[in-house]
Amino acid sequence: MRPIFWEDERLYIIDQTLLPIEYRIVEIQDHLEMADAIRRLAVRGAPAIGIASAYGLVLGLRPLIYSSNKAFFFSLNQISELLIDTRPTAVNIRWALKRMKDHAKSIRNQPLPEIWRSLLHEARKIQDEDIANCHKIAKYGAELLPENATVLTHCNAGGLATGGFGTALGIIIHGFQTGKILHVFVDETRPLLQGARLTAWELTEENVPFTLITDNMAASIMKTKKIDAIIVGADRIAANYDTANKIGTLGLAILARYFKIPFYVAAPFSTFDENIADGSSIIIEERNGDEVRNIFRNQIVPDTYPAISPAFDVTPHELITAVVTERGVFRPAKSR
Amino acid sequence: MRPIFWEDERLYIIDQTLLPIEYRIVEIQDHLEMADAIRRLAVRGAPAIGIASAYGLVLGLRPLIYSSNKAFFFSLNQISELLIDTRPTAVNIRWALKRMKDHAKSIRNQPLPEIWRSLLHEARKIQDEDIANCHKIAKYGAELLPENATVLTHCNAGGLATGGFGTALGIIIHGFQTGKILHVFVDETRPLLQGARLTAWELTEENVPFTLITDNMAASIMKTKKIDAIIVGADRIAANYDTANKIGTLGLAILARYFKIPFYVAAPFSTFDENIADGSSIIIEERNGDEVRNIFRNQIVPDTYPAISPAFDVTPHELITAVVTERGVFRPAKSR
Repeated sequence: MRPIFWEDERLYIIDQTLLPIEYRIVEIQDHLEMADAIRRLAVRGAPAIGIASAYGLVLGLRPLIYSSNKAFFFSLNQISELLIDTRPTAVNIRWALKRMKDHAKSIRNQPLPEIWRSLLHEARKIQDEDIANCHKIAKYGAELLPENATVLTHCNAGGLATGGFGTALGIIIHGFQTGKILHVFVDETRPLLQGARLTAWELTEENVPFTLITDNMAASIMKTKKIDAIIVGADRIAANYDTANKIGTLGLAILARYFKIPFYVAAPFSTFDENIADGSSIIIEERNGDEVRNIFRNQIVPDTYPAISPAFDVTPHELITAVVTERGVFRPAKSR
Repeated sequence: MRPIFWEDERLYIIDQTLLPIEYRIVEIQDHLEMADAIRRLAVRGAPAIGIASAYGLVLGLRPLIYSSNKAFFFSLNQISELLIDTRPTAVNIRWALKRMKDHAKSIRNQPLPEIWRSLLHEARKIQDEDIANCHKIAKYGAELLPENATVLTHCNAGGLATGGFGTALGIIIHGFQTGKILHVFVDETRPLLQGARLTAWELTEENVPFTLITDNMAASIMKTKKIDAIIVGADRIAANYDTANKIGTLGLAILARYFKIPFYVAAPFSTFDENIADGSSIIIEERNGDEVRNIFRNQIVPDTYPAISPAFDVTPHELITAVVTERGVFRPAKSR
């Protein structure tokens, strides 16, 4: 299952805002439609929006392959800026677009149709590499778990959030398939319910036994059941391993510390942002309070009630047991 | 504002399942309707369901005032058992019904119509005393806060949850009215959204400035804003101060400890259950997983997704800074 795919010269995404009630594939025609899809979370998840933005750039440049080299490269920069602005927290969009830009520059003397074709190839390569990385992460991550493990995850860091296999959920699915994981507790992950809607859907597709809980049940579950590990994804990791991830991750990490449960972050190595020394300089995207006042498009309180919706929080490195990447397992200094 | 009121020989409740979208008063005709109202949370909150069950007993006994003394007292026991079974965690139902039963016994030689009238008087007295207790709790609680405080609360421990003024929310409203509290963060409190629907509604009615957040934002708020105290209610408090309260309370208490924020429990003294040495013997009510699969009557995931819904969790006494009651402020041993 791939949340984004290029087929017959067209780009398609699964509209993740409709799952699990409806599975709908939609075509994305240009970079503006892609920016909109990213903004409204039709495609979401740090690695996936990196891949989506690379394809978005390709779509945006398609009308320019018979224009001038100057116009092409000017648009390349403009489209990149527009896509970067869609989600300020995730580093993967910047990373993927920088890779695309560097690639374009490296072949800038070729004819534009060939540069464009090569950029399309690069976007597909980014996706294929991401899937390969997810499989490596899955293998490294599952090795950290005891036999017959019960784990808890937050939000969706599965195939839908990546090129196609998942980081945190990749570990969980691989762990289940190799007999290491018995059961998964899934935080519903308000406000947008990526856990209830997307992670539960992916686990159902893979026949992994799970129990859905509301986010505020996690402490009770950690106290009353034997939870062997918490496994989550990441949107940006600072040089000192402070990690931005979906709102609620920080709380889980503090609970895990209290209950002495290992807390693992799974992410492709590209999620590290070496430009940022620690988490204090990670920009947290503030989304519309309507996300809190409404649930899955249903209003729960009047529009006039004040509400805020920070999309992410930052977990300090000292609460993270290890970061699992395709290059291996990294343990922050001063970690458990 | 009273969630339950006796008027012109009839009993009415505010149907709390409809707030804040609709404010509807419904008449409760007998003990069966009251048990149903308690079960479906049309009336909820530990002190309020104590009061509701006392009135429920009165309603159930009304048809028996011209029957035999034996039949009347037999029904008194039967109705009590039925009402106690509605919510196993809260101690207030047991407490209120024991008080009613003891009162009936103390006047058992009087004519039945007089016993019944006296029981009605006792139920109203329980409610009036609760309101008076809430005002005392509010005063004791507000004294614990610094000037210009920002506080965070969970679920609804307001007028709706009590006889009519509130425990945790009583402190907050009194604190605001006396200039001690500037702002309140309100956890929405999944699965049934008592924070978003009921606490936000009560604060709006009282003009107290608040911000609604999802439960999983609490850690981020504690990290990024200055929170002076967490204030919550209680459904049962063991002899050692271990406290059962709405699911999510335990997590908040652990976060408060991590961020060094005082954690206050506000409850009438009747919430103490001296029969229980510690929290391990508190029965936690397990409600239907549909509460997690649905939000405010809207389905978010298929019925087939496994989900659980423990209604409460138990916070160990060492995480509780103080319990605020109408008899004063109690500090658990080994507390901060």
